[in-house]
Amino acid sequence: MDNLQLIVKKYNIAIVGATGVVGETMLSILEERNFPVNNLILLASERSSGKEYWFRGQRSTVKTLNENSFKDINIALFSAGAMISKQYADIAVSEGCTVIDNSSAFRMDSDVPLVIPEINPEALSNHNGIIANPNCTTIVTLMALNAINKYSKIKKIIASSYQAVSGAGQDGINELIDQNKAIVIGQDPQIKYFSHQIANNLIPKIDRMDENGFTAEEMKMVNETRKIFNDENIRISATCVRVPVKTAHSVAVTIETENKIPIDNVREMIKNAEGVELLDDPLNNIYPMPLLAEGKDSCLVGRIREDLVFENGISLWVSGDQLRKGAALNTIQIAEKMIEMGVI
Amino acid sequence: MDNLQLIVKKYNIAIVGATGVVGETMLSILEERNFPVNNLILLASERSSGKEYWFRGQRSTVKTLNENSFKDINIALFSAGAMISKQYADIAVSEGCTVIDNSSAFRMDSDVPLVIPEINPEALSNHNGIIANPNCTTIVTLMALNAINKYSKIKKIIASSYQAVSGAGQDGINELIDQNKAIVIGQDPQIKYFSHQIANNLIPKIDRMDENGFTAEEMKMVNETRKIFNDENIRISATCVRVPVKTAHSVAVTIETENKIPIDNVREMIKNAEGVELLDDPLNNIYPMPLLAEGKDSCLVGRIREDLVFENGISLWVSGDQLRKGAALNTIQIAEKMIEMGVI
Repeated sequence: MDNLQLIVKKYNIAIVGATGVVGETMLSILEERNFPVNNLILLASERSSGKEYWFRGQRSTVKTLNENSFKDINIALFSAGAMISKQYADIAVSEGCTVIDNSSAFRMDSDVPLVIPEINPEALSNHNGIIANPNCTTIVTLMALNAINKYSKIKKIIASSYQAVSGAGQDGINELIDQNKAIVIGQDPQIKYFSHQIANNLIPKIDRMDENGFTAEEMKMVNETRKIFNDENIRISATCVRVPVKTAHSVAVTIETENKIPIDNVREMIKNAEGVELLDDPLNNIYPMPLLAEGKDSCLVGRIREDLVFENGISLWVSGDQLRKGAALNTIQIAEKMIEMGVI
Repeated sequence: MDNLQLIVKKYNIAIVGATGVVGETMLSILEERNFPVNNLILLASERSSGKEYWFRGQRSTVKTLNENSFKDINIALFSAGAMISKQYADIAVSEGCTVIDNSSAFRMDSDVPLVIPEINPEALSNHNGIIANPNCTTIVTLMALNAINKYSKIKKIIASSYQAVSGAGQDGINELIDQNKAIVIGQDPQIKYFSHQIANNLIPKIDRMDENGFTAEEMKMVNETRKIFNDENIRISATCVRVPVKTAHSVAVTIETENKIPIDNVREMIKNAEGVELLDDPLNNIYPMPLLAEGKDSCLVGRIREDLVFENGISLWVSGDQLRKGAALNTIQIAEKMIEMGVI
C-alpha cells in the first residue's frame, strides 16, 4: 500500500453498543479526530434501536445488532459487554471485518493482541481479526509507567485505584447524580445499580471475586499488565475501589525498577512521553485530579517521589479519563495505528 | 490506689477546642461512656465562647481559653490545632493537669508517649504530663495491623488512604455539603476551604509538602507508625488522598511480615482483636465502607488476602470513623487507660 492510498482510503465503521456512554464517546472522538470514515453504522440492542445521533452534520439512526450487521464493514468497534463480543466478534471477522473490542472477552487469548498504541503497537502486526482494548484502570496506570519501564524494567507494582462511576456505564453515572440529588433534598438515596450507596461512600469491590481473594478487576491489572509489558515475571498487586467521582480514574502507584532512576529523570521522561502530561508541582497545589482529567486525551501524572519501601522505588499518582483514554479513545487509536501500520 | 478509690474517683475535665467537630464528639463520647467526670469545662477561642452545650442534662457554657483556664483541672483534652497546644499545654501541665493532645504538636517528642490504647498502653506508664493522640489515618491503619504485628513483625507497609473531609474539621464537612448542593441545583461549587473542589473530585495532597516529595500527612504515617510499633526499622510508604466522603477514613494496605501467616489465621486474629470488627465476605458484598464505619467505635477490616508482590505479603482494606477512633474516642480511651493504670 503506498502513501497515496493511505491518505485517501476511508473505512466503513460499525460501533457496537453505540448508545452506551463509551459508544457515544467513540462517536464524538471519531468526529474530533477526523477519522477516515466512509460509512458509519451504529448498532445496539433492539431496545435502543431507532435512536438518532448526529455525525459530521448527518443524522445516523441506530440499528438493531444482528448476524447480518457486518456486511461491508471494515472496522467494528465493540463496546457492548463481553457476552455480545463473544456472540458477534467471530461473525464480524468472518465477514472480513477487523474487530477492536473494548470488553474483557478476548483480552487474555494468546492470539489476540492487547494493545495500548503508545506502549506495544508492535503487537498489532500479528492478529487474526480481533484486537482487544485493555481495561480502563490498566490503561491509565500503564500510561504513567510506560516511559519508566522502557528506561529500566519494572519488577514490582503495588496499585490502589480510585475509580469513577462511569466505569459502570451511564447507569453508574446516573446513580451517583441521583443519589447526590436525593441527599441534598433530604430523601433516602436509592440503590439501583451498585451493590451499595456510592454517594459519600467508597465500594472496595469492582467486578466479581476471584478465588485468590482479589476481584476480577484487580486481576485484570495483574494479567493485562504482564501481557502489555510482555513480561511474565513482573509482580503486581492491586486494590480497586469505586469512588464518588464521575468519569476519571485515578491510581496511587508504587513500583520497583531494576535500576535506580533519579526522580528528576522520571519527571523528564513523563514530560517527554506521548499521551501523558506532567502535573507535578504540589507545593503550588498542582497535581493530577479527576476533575482536571475529565474530557482530556492525556493521562495526568504527578506526586512523583522516591519511594520509602522499595529499593529502587518510585511512587506516583495518575488520573485519566476513563471514557476516553480508558476506553473509547484507546480503541480508536488502535484503529489509527493499524491503518498507519497497514495491518487493517 | 485501691480498687475502691478507682471506682469513686472523678475528674475535672477540660475540653480545649470544645466547639470544633472533634471537641463536640469528645463531649458526646464522655457522656456515652459514662466517663468519671466531676466538673466539665468547655474552652474555645473568644469567637466561640458563650456557646452552650448539654452534658448529662446540664447546660455548659463555653469559656474563652486563657492562661488561667487550667486551675483545678485534672485532665485537659486538647483539640484546637498544634499552635494552641504549643501555647497552652505546658501551662496546663504546670497546674498539675494531664494533657492528652490530639494535635501534631508533641507526637514525635521523645518524652511524649504516642498511644493507641489497644496497641501500646505500656508507653503511658512514663510521661511528663503530656500524652499525644496519633494522626487519624495512622490510628485507623494500625488498628487493622496490630494483631498481625504482634503475631509476626511487620517489615514493610505500603498504604493508600481515602480520607474523609471531616479530617479538615467542620469547615471540611460543610464544604462537601455545600458543593454537592451547588452541583445539584446547577450552580458553580464555591471553593472556600480546600485547595480545589472536593465534590466529585479527589485531592492527592493533605497537609504541607515535606522536602522528600511526601506530604506531612504521609510522613505522619511513617514516623508515628515507627513510634507506636516501637520499631525504627519498619519501612513505610503512603499516599494520602482526600475523597468526597464525610467522616470515615479508609486505607488500602499491603504489608510484608517476617514470617508467613495463613490468611485464615489473619482473619481469626482480626476477629478476636480489640477495637476492630471483621467484615470480610466480599462474595456477599460484605466489606468495610465509610458509610458503615461512620458513628462506630470499631475500625472495620476486610478484603484480607495473600498479597501478590511481597514474599510474606498481606493486603487488606480498613475503614474507621475519623472523628471517633481517629480522634475523640482514642483521646478518651487514653484517659480511661491512664486511670486504669493509675498513672494520672
